[in-house]
Amino acid sequence: MQTDAYLIHVNGSVTHPKVLDVHVNIKGPNAVEKIKSLKPRWAVRASEMSKKTFNPIRAIVDNMTAIPNPEKPMIALSIGDPTVFGNLPTDNEVMKAMKEAIDSKKYNGYAPSIGYLSSREVVAKYYTCPEATLEAKDVILTSGCSQAIELALAVLANPGQNILVPRPGFSLYKTLALSLGIEVKLYNLLPEKSWEIDLTHMESLVDDKTACIIINNPSNPCGSVFSRKHLQKILSVASRQCVPILADEIYGDMVFEEGAFQALAPLSSNVPILSCGGLAKRWLVPGWRLGWILIHDRKEIFGKEIREGLVRLSQRILGPCSIVQGALEHIMNKTPQEFYDNTISFTKSNADLCYTTLSSVPGLCPVRPAGAMYLMVGIEMEHFPEFESDVDFTERMISEQSVFCLPATCFEYPNYFRIVLTVPEEMMIEACRRIREYCESHYQGAESTQDLECDK
Amino acid sequence: MQTDAYLIHVNGSVTHPKVLDVHVNIKGPNAVEKIKSLKPRWAVRASEMSKKTFNPIRAIVDNMTAIPNPEKPMIALSIGDPTVFGNLPTDNEVMKAMKEAIDSKKYNGYAPSIGYLSSREVVAKYYTCPEATLEAKDVILTSGCSQAIELALAVLANPGQNILVPRPGFSLYKTLALSLGIEVKLYNLLPEKSWEIDLTHMESLVDDKTACIIINNPSNPCGSVFSRKHLQKILSVASRQCVPILADEIYGDMVFEEGAFQALAPLSSNVPILSCGGLAKRWLVPGWRLGWILIHDRKEIFGKEIREGLVRLSQRILGPCSIVQGALEHIMNKTPQEFYDNTISFTKSNADLCYTTLSSVPGLCPVRPAGAMYLMVGIEMEHFPEFESDVDFTERMISEQSVFCLPATCFEYPNYFRIVLTVPEEMMIEACRRIREYCESHYQGAESTQDLECDK
Repeated sequence: MQTDAYLIHVNGSVTHPKVLDVHVNIKGPNAVEKIKSLKPRWAVRASEMSKKTFNPIRAIVDNMTAIPNPEKPMIALSIGDPTVFGNLPTDNEVMKAMKEAIDSKKYNGYAPSIGYLSSREVVAKYYTCPEATLEAKDVILTSGCSQAIELALAVLANPGQNILVPRPGFSLYKTLALSLGIEVKLYNLLPEKSWEIDLTHMESLVDDKTACIIINNPSNPCGSVFSRKHLQKILSVASRQCVPILADEIYGDMVFEEGAFQALAPLSSNVPILSCGGLAKRWLVPGWRLGWILIHDRKEIFGKEIREGLVRLSQRILGPCSIVQGALEHIMNKTPQEFYDNTISFTKSNADLCYTTLSSVPGLCPVRPAGAMYLMVGIEMEHFPEFESDVDFTERMISEQSVFCLPATCFEYPNYFRIVLTVPEEMMIEACRRIREYCESHYQGAESTQDLECDK
Repeated sequence: MQTDAYLIHVNGSVTHPKVLDVHVNIKGPNAVEKIKSLKPRWAVRASEMSKKTFNPIRAIVDNMTAIPNPEKPMIALSIGDPTVFGNLPTDNEVMKAMKEAIDSKKYNGYAPSIGYLSSREVVAKYYTCPEATLEAKDVILTSGCSQAIELALAVLANPGQNILVPRPGFSLYKTLALSLGIEVKLYNLLPEKSWEIDLTHMESLVDDKTACIIINNPSNPCGSVFSRKHLQKILSVASRQCVPILADEIYGDMVFEEGAFQALAPLSSNVPILSCGGLAKRWLVPGWRLGWILIHDRKEIFGKEIREGLVRLSQRILGPCSIVQGALEHIMNKTPQEFYDNTISFTKSNADLCYTTLSSVPGLCPVRPAGAMYLMVGIEMEHFPEFESDVDFTERMISEQSVFCLPATCFEYPNYFRIVLTVPEEMMIEACRRIREYCESHYQGAESTQDLECDK
């Protein structure tokens, strides 16, 4: 170590010989001053941003210490990943598309940060409609729908502004907002109205710092699907309050009744909308991390500024995997309709089974889902006085029945739990059987009042 | 539109009938007040963050309006993507690994946000060494090396702090730092010392707000490779000043002389280091977006806090494509040595060719590279009085010779330009021929002084 020899030369005012005409400006405090100052000490701290980046699901689940009942094999109805049990593989055409993209050797280099033009064209063509036309310039490809939501939030909101987020709702909105220093205001969904938005409440939250409203349809964790009429009312609020919408439509088209899904943008005459989606759920490949933002801005309210902002933000990590981008055309255009239909009919069948079974379980109030892949179950806590909360309730269900459901406190909605519906049917049946056994063994109180409380 | 009917019910004080015991708190200003206030107007502005996210290369290049000479086919020596011309395909084993990962159907679901444990183990095993051991817990997989650098910066620095960045240097450091509100201080590299760091200058820039020093070795845009001795001196500065290092080692092992690359971490006895890398360059698949952070923290100066911060930040967009993660083991362990050797010998051959040719061109001072895939060429501007700057010089080279090199103003280093060395050999030869013709036609002044100025 020649550090001593080196130190002698520390002198900010020395001009270094330069061969060529390069302008070198030595900025900062003079190095001589540096030496005189106190000896530095190691004090590396994690940034405020990293501390603010907070996943509520992890915080809650990591504190759940229950050990599953060793006599019963574990059934996890907790993870929103349809691929976990292998019963819902992606389509062969999707795999073929990827292998062709690899073999073509055309997709190994850097794509533009917002995605290949040809891939953006494919997405635009797939989602365009007469009421809301899309071209390649209206599409930004992202590393999963998570990054789509991140970019959309990052371009629309400054630290100190707020966004409106559904309660119950997907926890990532809050994680991303807090990470960016954006305040979250929760608007209520109404279980008694199939989780429609309490529009009065939502509108009451809007203030002059509201940067956007997040609308998640179909919904995680509710499995609800908004009607056209309800969507129009949502747009009326946004239009009246002049607040743009971030539409999380990752479960778009995953609805149990044909044609029941209505994208938000085609109904909008003026409200600018960033619609986020991806391959994850519809094509059953959430790990592939291909998402997109569709920019809907018929009245040019976003204008050039938001578009350019999205492009600039995309340059930070340079977009999704090029192979998946290269496979997009084949994936979107050659996946057979049967594949989508099978996923939906499977999920619907499990939804029916689960809803019907749990409807007759004392103390539970399942809310019938209409799409996505989730079902929310209300817990009549007054009939389970042993348990303090939904967290407590679901934790004991693990230790007694080896069934793991996420307590809806994870979604800012106490006294409910969420069931993932994409598990194999026999597992769904067994899980429902065990949930019944669990509730029957803990339920206290007269059956008669129950029917009044819960609209079964 | 039933907005009028809906509006009548706007009243923050109404209590909504609730079926279950869900706590609903209506926050925010009373909705009645809202109606009384001024009518909102559309005013959607892009966020400060999006405006601060600034790619200097784009800003410079997009303003270069030169049209290539229609009589000469365009040769782009500008893009740091070795796959552009198809002469450097990735290895068949790499492609095979991907196809096997697809066929296994094991890698379609969500991976943990920091990557599969098994994939992190593979990377740890690949880069571990006795002086700097690595385990899976020390590896974070990211969406390309860009996201690795982004996460490393985001965890180490708060807005208002500063980082030290090489000049000339890769523009992404500044783009990411400004995006996060982090100040950038540029330390000088010395062309006359094969682009070693001016350590005196670097140390003079450290102040109590310095969050980290970025060390890029081998270097983009310089193609330089630091000696072990120089790296030790860099570590001495960091150790003395107690500043952690972000080592961008994406070109690690891509050096022309066998064994010349020395990773930084094994030399460190105390300085904590986040080393960023990825598949992009060594495996020639930059579009696949698989990168990593290796956490080196032998004295536990980063400690739990930085590790947890990285995990939390990774949860924002949930890591790289799962298929590429699944292919990692095969890619890292079965790619034949010959493949790496061929890439290097090809690049070295082009480097020699280019350096030798341009050394004899009047007015140019190429700096011999030792690795990576770039060569920097100094322009003796006093001999080209027609041109105001390197931007001007390279722009006219497009319109006259259809050769496009990036002006080094893109790397904060005026009066140089950068050549990418991975183009096919015949293209390299033709480009050098045209650069010579270009310089000869514009050079003014005596040859005799030139030899003194530029150490040819």
